Amino acid sequence: MTPAKSDTPLQILISAPDDAVAQFQPAIAKALTAAGVTSHIAPDLAPENVDYIVFAPNGMIADFTPFTRARAALSLWAGVDKVLDNPTLTLPLARMVDPGQREGMIEYVTAHVLRHHIEMDRYIMTSQGWDQIAPPLARDRKVTVLGVGELGGACASALGALNFNTHGWSRRPRTVPGVTTHTGDAGLDDALSGADIVVCLLPTTPQTENVLNATTLALLAPGAVVINPGRGSLIDDAALIAALDSGALGHATLDTFRVEPLPEDHAFRDHPKVTVSPHVASLVRTDTSAAVIAKNICRGEAGEPFQHLVNRQAGY
Amino acid sequence: MTPAKSDTPLQILISAPDDAVAQFQPAIAKALTAAGVTSHIAPDLAPENVDYIVFAPNGMIADFTPFTRARAALSLWAGVDKVLDNPTLTLPLARMVDPGQREGMIEYVTAHVLRHHIEMDRYIMTSQGWDQIAPPLARDRKVTVLGVGELGGACASALGALNFNTHGWSRRPRTVPGVTTHTGDAGLDDALSGADIVVCLLPTTPQTENVLNATTLALLAPGAVVINPGRGSLIDDAALIAALDSGALGHATLDTFRVEPLPEDHAFRDHPKVTVSPHVASLVRTDTSAAVIAKNICRGEAGEPFQHLVNRQAGY
Repeated sequence: MTPAKSDTPLQILISAPDDAVAQFQPAIAKALTAAGVTSHIAPDLAPENVDYIVFAPNGMIADFTPFTRARAALSLWAGVDKVLDNPTLTLPLARMVDPGQREGMIEYVTAHVLRHHIEMDRYIMTSQGWDQIAPPLARDRKVTVLGVGELGGACASALGALNFNTHGWSRRPRTVPGVTTHTGDAGLDDALSGADIVVCLLPTTPQTENVLNATTLALLAPGAVVINPGRGSLIDDAALIAALDSGALGHATLDTFRVEPLPEDHAFRDHPKVTVSPHVASLVRTDTSAAVIAKNICRGEAGEPFQHLVNRQAGY
Repeated sequence: MTPAKSDTPLQILISAPDDAVAQFQPAIAKALTAAGVTSHIAPDLAPENVDYIVFAPNGMIADFTPFTRARAALSLWAGVDKVLDNPTLTLPLARMVDPGQREGMIEYVTAHVLRHHIEMDRYIMTSQGWDQIAPPLARDRKVTVLGVGELGGACASALGALNFNTHGWSRRPRTVPGVTTHTGDAGLDDALSGADIVVCLLPTTPQTENVLNATTLALLAPGAVVINPGRGSLIDDAALIAALDSGALGHATLDTFRVEPLPEDHAFRDHPKVTVSPHVASLVRTDTSAAVIAKNICRGEAGEPFQHLVNRQAGY
């Protein structure tokens, strides 16, 4: 799909931390050139001249009003919760849906689910002994993924393919092959009841805040494991720590937090039953995500609908 | 398939350590009863009365000659190397091919491959810091499985489905969907060259001894990981330790050893780059494997070929 050629380069603002600009500016320029589009991509364009905004949602643009010419705001991140409550952003807003990011998330989630499933830490932590303990097979583990959209659905599918008894929960009813899906409040109870492992991949919205709290955590199987590569707000931190300390939960592997970077003195840091990873489960990878941005720009120029538009009512 | 009914119970010797007898005797009896076969299963039958031998290969029967009436020797284990060089065993000999064992092996192998692939130890070992390091995606990791039979082939398929650049090597040419297969000596070089992770699932035969040695280990990518849930004899232990110490290899996750239980003072025990698990990757699980034994007995009674017969020339 080639947009109409123009002699005037498209003016594309890239609004992100310096290292992200250095990473993405050349990759997006290259992808656009390959598509036959001339562009000028820079972090410091006058707003009234900007055709497209490419941005990282962590706070560079406070006021979108001056961008009178812009056709869309294209996020470099999958999660757009940080900008959704900015009333000045009325442009079409697209999330990042990057195949590389999806693959990375599947790999992180399956890795951590399997780590806990085969009770791997026993052998990582000690090299003594010869106790031949057979953990259950995947077919006998209930694994629940909260959120079965782009990332959650892909992870749930991969877990189902690994033979786990896989359940998924989402706001709107969805079908995922190999996965038992649930929806609504009663569905949340069914999804979580007796689950051995829970994976949180919901977006942050007012409805999803603290979806894992003292009440819902109590539904899980004794010694259950929580894995959160979604958003920090999905879990009530104090309830999580209480459940870990009581033994109700066996472990928590956390990749996202209410405050990032996670402060060095946060209770999660030294907790013996918590694994902290620094929001790496699903890093946006340059080439594949630059291609997604470029494709949306081409679609805009060709008058075609943008991909991955955010539904502001839903919040994602 | 129902064998001809008989009033005389089949006399089945179960020759294994006491705990295995306690575990398998009732399960096999139950499976045979369900198939309409009356049996007497015990560890102490007079050899000349035995119709079938069910055994664990770790050394209970030294002389199979007195079993003049037996129709087959059915192993409780997948690996039969321990009995193959017993010249008194001339009966049809069947390996254990248990779906539960296959599933367990797939889960162990995918778990440890993914652990090393996402560089998980970084986060297990420390909870400080916030270095957002993005490991390669599975598509950019070469993972090689040595042995693509029942267990190796299943593991290779699972790894391919997880998007790894998966290669397999076997003595005889085989096709495994999603996997690039190799065979022969030149094929071994191709399979191992530049591999990031190697999984050893060959049977023990004179030809496979030390398949991983100083020369072949040197073909792997720098910092590669070796995973051995196959047999201890597949790896030259000294060469492995030398490669770990030099940094040529990043880690070894070992589940099988030349001497088991692994002696507490073995060099693998405290090595910082070695994970020891006590031959648990693929424990035979009672119900599923009892069903396999019962099915072979039924086939024998019905005059049908036994399943999973061992090729003595090949050694597996």
